[in-house]
Amino acid sequence: MKRKVTLKQIAKELDVSISTVSKALRNSKEISEDTREKVQAFAKLYNYKPNNIALSLKNKKTKTIGIIIPEIVHHFFSKVIRGIELVANKRGYNVIVGLSNESFNKEVINMEMLANGSIDGFILSISKETLLQQDYHHFYETINQGMPIVMFDRVVNDVRCDKVIVDDLKGSKKAVNKLIENGCKNIAIITTKDYVSVGKLRTQGYLEALEDHKIQPKSELILKIVEELDAEDHLEDLEAEIECLIKNNPEIDGVFAVNELYALTAMKVAKKLKRKIPADIQVIGFTDGVLSKHATPSLTTVSQHAQQMGEKAAELLIDNLEHEEEEEHYKTVVIETELIERESTK
Amino acid sequence: MKRKVTLKQIAKELDVSISTVSKALRNSKEISEDTREKVQAFAKLYNYKPNNIALSLKNKKTKTIGIIIPEIVHHFFSKVIRGIELVANKRGYNVIVGLSNESFNKEVINMEMLANGSIDGFILSISKETLLQQDYHHFYETINQGMPIVMFDRVVNDVRCDKVIVDDLKGSKKAVNKLIENGCKNIAIITTKDYVSVGKLRTQGYLEALEDHKIQPKSELILKIVEELDAEDHLEDLEAEIECLIKNNPEIDGVFAVNELYALTAMKVAKKLKRKIPADIQVIGFTDGVLSKHATPSLTTVSQHAQQMGEKAAELLIDNLEHEEEEEHYKTVVIETELIERESTK
Repeated sequence: MKRKVTLKQIAKELDVSISTVSKALRNSKEISEDTREKVQAFAKLYNYKPNNIALSLKNKKTKTIGIIIPEIVHHFFSKVIRGIELVANKRGYNVIVGLSNESFNKEVINMEMLANGSIDGFILSISKETLLQQDYHHFYETINQGMPIVMFDRVVNDVRCDKVIVDDLKGSKKAVNKLIENGCKNIAIITTKDYVSVGKLRTQGYLEALEDHKIQPKSELILKIVEELDAEDHLEDLEAEIECLIKNNPEIDGVFAVNELYALTAMKVAKKLKRKIPADIQVIGFTDGVLSKHATPSLTTVSQHAQQMGEKAAELLIDNLEHEEEEEHYKTVVIETELIERESTK
Repeated sequence: MKRKVTLKQIAKELDVSISTVSKALRNSKEISEDTREKVQAFAKLYNYKPNNIALSLKNKKTKTIGIIIPEIVHHFFSKVIRGIELVANKRGYNVIVGLSNESFNKEVINMEMLANGSIDGFILSISKETLLQQDYHHFYETINQGMPIVMFDRVVNDVRCDKVIVDDLKGSKKAVNKLIENGCKNIAIITTKDYVSVGKLRTQGYLEALEDHKIQPKSELILKIVEELDAEDHLEDLEAEIECLIKNNPEIDGVFAVNELYALTAMKVAKKLKRKIPADIQVIGFTDGVLSKHATPSLTTVSQHAQQMGEKAAELLIDNLEHEEEEEHYKTVVIETELIERESTK
């Protein structure tokens, strides 16, 4: 019995990356002619089909939604999934979850696998590695073959599909405005590198809020964390970086952190350095996490309304699936953020 | 093009439950002859196949593991998934997650969908509804057709497959022994109804620990929560029940709660009733959750080592998949619990 060969297998066999195989098959000029020929010959020999999406779509509806998320031990993503499930179940759909683990390859492999007749469409949030590499061919291919995608939270503008985002810039401005109103003069931000779109927007909101209040941003108060430090086994390094920030800049009286982990770590470090929260340093995070509510002091946060995001994403996808005849027009739905004040601010 | 009809569709068409359809197809005497004939005729007419597992297994390995868990917004399950992923990735497998939402029907539908050629085997934790109904036909069918299952945490002894469990009874005894050693005389337990296997074992551990110390158990100190109260929109009812327990039994000086939610709610209620923790009431939970560490006071817990459970489950499944020739012998691996002492006990 002839087996269908996958992108991954071709890549492994020829010792090139999945991305290279995909580009070579599309005859992309980015790839050397030699490699292109080799990949194409191999694909032909083993009867590679760029997956059976179009075919399976014509034949059946699975009534299943594929969700691809970067990681599972993360309250935000699990709340989004709960929102998706609520709407999906109400409308007779099932959901299935694939994990990219922030890896480009795993994102591609999961999408290829699920698209192969298991699901009707995707709801996904892009992995950090994909954002860094800016290689979006797997999204384009999926959409071109007639399978709809709805992106949430981490999206790319270039890909033509429905999107659900939080107003990261406005949310971040709300947080920083609050710190300024509360009397903070030297506000630090703990954020991600710029290739993570939501991190970039939140940094931008921080800068705009300072500008609105005629406060000169200081580069030494802007800490951009490399993603590796987010991993559970690097928490000490994360702590060390934040400790440096606060030690080296004793004038800091406010911290805005773009996620829960950074915010809680900042509070931990501040306590360790005998700085009182909120008397000496006020802290605001950006999250829907459960820890914020239960931390001591409890953390003031910009809430992303994760569940609502999931609900909206599911509505957009199912509407799209059930009204195929309509002409293409993609929506970007912005979910409003909300500042939830707790004990970490005055 | 002829579509394959599913169990769910037959059930809907004939207005009977999925379980009835499945039993009727196996000609179970539990189902009336009339219904059996109706279901079998319908299945024949629409060419129902009890899913293509056997066929797809012969033709290919997907190198994908299907995980079915009761719910996703739950730190324990996400840690187990992380453990499964770690091992799966190391050994060249991908994972995909289906959610039962504690519903029997969703468990059956998800398994049917995934078994249909998408995966090589299952790792799963049984839904509460399935445990309550004691209908395990979907597990038997999957196994009979040659697709291996590894169950974790919530398992049933009757099903012949590999299992990974925590030593719930021993873990619970550790917790109650600790409370007794710390001087508690009137220890309450907040647990689930007995059909949830882990709840039942933990209740049993509580009773045995009391007995070992010649303490007479009092029925008014044993609170068995109905599952509906676990839902996020019923937290107030849960709180009310626990408040009743503590108000009506002012002699309570120790609480053992079989999960994090119950434990944290008990601490909340105790604080509300002006009982000091641990001076007046000591509290121990049973969980790997993140909240325990961050609660005020931080919660002493019996740790389940969720990630280790996932790792072990993945090892068992992949070993099974890769050594097909071996004769059948199923293992039950017991993961040892550990008492993590924090501020909620003396």
